[in-house]
Amino acid sequence: MTYLKPIDSSEHSIPVDDIMINGRISAELLDSRDGLSAKKNEFVLPEGVIYLDGNSLGPMPRAAQIRSREVVENQWSNDLITSWNKHQWIDLPELVGAKIAPLIGAKPTEVICCDSVSVNLFKLLALGLQLQPGRTKILSQRDNFPTDLYIAQGLQKILSSEQCELIAVDEADIESFLTEDIAILTLTQVNFRSGQVHNIKKLTEKAHQKGILVIWDLAHSAGVMPIELDQWNVDFAVGCGYKYFNGGPGAPAFVFAAERWHSKLNQPLAGWMGHISPFDFSPEYEGAQNIKQFLCGTPSVISMAVLDAALDVYRDLSIDDVRCKALQLADFFAFQVSQSNELDDLVLISPTKHELRGSQLAYQHSYAYAICQALIAHGVIADFREPNLLRFGFSPLFLTFSEIEQSVSILRKIMSEKEYLKEEFNRRQKVT
Amino acid sequence: MTYLKPIDSSEHSIPVDDIMINGRISAELLDSRDGLSAKKNEFVLPEGVIYLDGNSLGPMPRAAQIRSREVVENQWSNDLITSWNKHQWIDLPELVGAKIAPLIGAKPTEVICCDSVSVNLFKLLALGLQLQPGRTKILSQRDNFPTDLYIAQGLQKILSSEQCELIAVDEADIESFLTEDIAILTLTQVNFRSGQVHNIKKLTEKAHQKGILVIWDLAHSAGVMPIELDQWNVDFAVGCGYKYFNGGPGAPAFVFAAERWHSKLNQPLAGWMGHISPFDFSPEYEGAQNIKQFLCGTPSVISMAVLDAALDVYRDLSIDDVRCKALQLADFFAFQVSQSNELDDLVLISPTKHELRGSQLAYQHSYAYAICQALIAHGVIADFREPNLLRFGFSPLFLTFSEIEQSVSILRKIMSEKEYLKEEFNRRQKVT
Repeated sequence: MTYLKPIDSSEHSIPVDDIMINGRISAELLDSRDGLSAKKNEFVLPEGVIYLDGNSLGPMPRAAQIRSREVVENQWSNDLITSWNKHQWIDLPELVGAKIAPLIGAKPTEVICCDSVSVNLFKLLALGLQLQPGRTKILSQRDNFPTDLYIAQGLQKILSSEQCELIAVDEADIESFLTEDIAILTLTQVNFRSGQVHNIKKLTEKAHQKGILVIWDLAHSAGVMPIELDQWNVDFAVGCGYKYFNGGPGAPAFVFAAERWHSKLNQPLAGWMGHISPFDFSPEYEGAQNIKQFLCGTPSVISMAVLDAALDVYRDLSIDDVRCKALQLADFFAFQVSQSNELDDLVLISPTKHELRGSQLAYQHSYAYAICQALIAHGVIADFREPNLLRFGFSPLFLTFSEIEQSVSILRKIMSEKEYLKEEFNRRQKVT
Repeated sequence: MTYLKPIDSSEHSIPVDDIMINGRISAELLDSRDGLSAKKNEFVLPEGVIYLDGNSLGPMPRAAQIRSREVVENQWSNDLITSWNKHQWIDLPELVGAKIAPLIGAKPTEVICCDSVSVNLFKLLALGLQLQPGRTKILSQRDNFPTDLYIAQGLQKILSSEQCELIAVDEADIESFLTEDIAILTLTQVNFRSGQVHNIKKLTEKAHQKGILVIWDLAHSAGVMPIELDQWNVDFAVGCGYKYFNGGPGAPAFVFAAERWHSKLNQPLAGWMGHISPFDFSPEYEGAQNIKQFLCGTPSVISMAVLDAALDVYRDLSIDDVRCKALQLADFFAFQVSQSNELDDLVLISPTKHELRGSQLAYQHSYAYAICQALIAHGVIADFREPNLLRFGFSPLFLTFSEIEQSVSILRKIMSEKEYLKEEFNRRQKVT
């Protein structure tokens, strides 16, 4: 058996021998053998659109639409305040957390849904510093998703510099900075630009050897990569509801806290929902000594209920299968691009090895913005990241291999006919 | 002209002379003269329910239902990621803020919609301390809504006690504690239990005389009381989207910051949405020097869009009219209760004077929980607050005087037939 090896081969590579028709790889055959193909029916997707941006905002699952009507038009409208108990709104943060837990290798009681990734990271960084008396440094990566750095800078601003210091280093230097004066290592598993993957297990182990706590941001990986937080001994993590989990625009985020820390939780965003008995309305805060302490104010029930329903898409899935198809979609895309002379100017900056790559591919091009606009005009939704990156996301629950083939073919047309120059012209007109 | 004076008279009192029919005050006549009565049609309310808990969760405006479908089933579903620009999701926090602004006496650029009341209060308390170098004390009220105290306690936890100290005093002692060592005075305008109102103008003035910043929590007043933040020289405020604004369960909250502070903003929850150029993805946080700095992570678009639509109910309303009807509804309720011997055991703990009272009435009774359950069983939704309070909220946009009459009549039946004893029995069965 030989495998399609555009950029790497692993057990996930596409077996190539029996998918050739007339000397070309058949996307139709790949689709017909896709064990996840039925999942596409669980989404509502617009006609004529190929959506390569599920890594930024997942599309709408049918279940989410149904639940949105249910929570607004039945629960809120008919049952009003009594819905907090009758429809378990009060338990939603825990219920959603428990649904996410198996998808990231956690116990149901270790995950809760609340607030945004940024707000949750603040809770964890402040908590982490308190759990590390005598240590004040937070180590991160210079090209981490900016909000992760900003939140550490925000914490630094209200603590004195003797209490908190952010050190953001190049990716290559992270390991050498894992020394005994570091309190917390906080990184995003998958880089938002390049798609490069950190080895959580290895870095967590190295950090722990120096007594460093780890906080992983799973925003660009949860739902599309196998993650084993408990097995990898991770302390804390945050993640996003609206990317691969398809929870809707700005869906609430989640927090993971390993059970071994539950008796020491003491996070500063001490809102009433995290109180051990919120409805006692006691004037003294006493935080729940479990995952509920990460709740702060009243959660956005409508948004959270929609995420809850969206997660049901995963009910019968193996994340390994999801990961396998994601890699194959990306490989197929990269293969098609590499076979097209018209696309020679697109420079792949994502890692080529499967184990180093998330679920997206990024290509550099000086007209990246304009190419992205031209793609969108043709119904291929990708995205652009400053200064010159075209980013393609491969969400395996609704994308087909035929769509991948078609998107590359459209990209070829745009490049060969220089359609992007028109978009670039429009852009410059707007700026001036 | 004489006025219905159950507990107070003011220019808002019900003129009594011409609403008597057969020696009794006619709820029907009051309804027929109600200038706000048409507003009820803008809400969807369940049949057979009298909703006296709009102060806890407002009911569903029709516009909110329509927008919920629009944002989920059209914008998200069809336009996916492009909706951030195409449907102005990116501007929603400012647009919603600008809609709330005139309802609280603020400029459109002084209010933004984001996060929860608790999270927003954290931002403001931390910011406030930074704006007051040399002062470390936060003054509040012991029976403030607990989350307000908890959030200050949470901030105190991560700062040293030399940097932050919460002082929570009795209501009667607040003024005497306004001394020059206090950094911030933070209070809720309307007490969540008793409905007692603080005089924002007077307390702000007294605080400013001592160089104290003020942060007002408008959760139990915005949307139902005239508020003039700019005129009263308020520095900062927070408020809630899901009570009188009817924005749906857990709707996002809002922040007000007086324009004079915009050049000095430096809040610690420094998420990417508050960056001056979020899409530059720069590694250094540079906060927008305007109200947008209060944004942190990606907002819950669905919940925020629903609130945005709900606020349209206010488009043609005068808050003075809203306030007037709210007081009249409460007066009429209190009058009916005071006329009923069966209700003698219910002790009103809310202030009797209009100027001291918000839009709710609280009655003490040792079986308050059981009475509340019995009311709900009869379709009258009130709520219970520990240890022994029955709380009735008077949302004037959808309540009628006839409903008030009917709810008191049901309450009378419950008390005279001791129906609540059955509920109390059920409760004890559950506990044991």
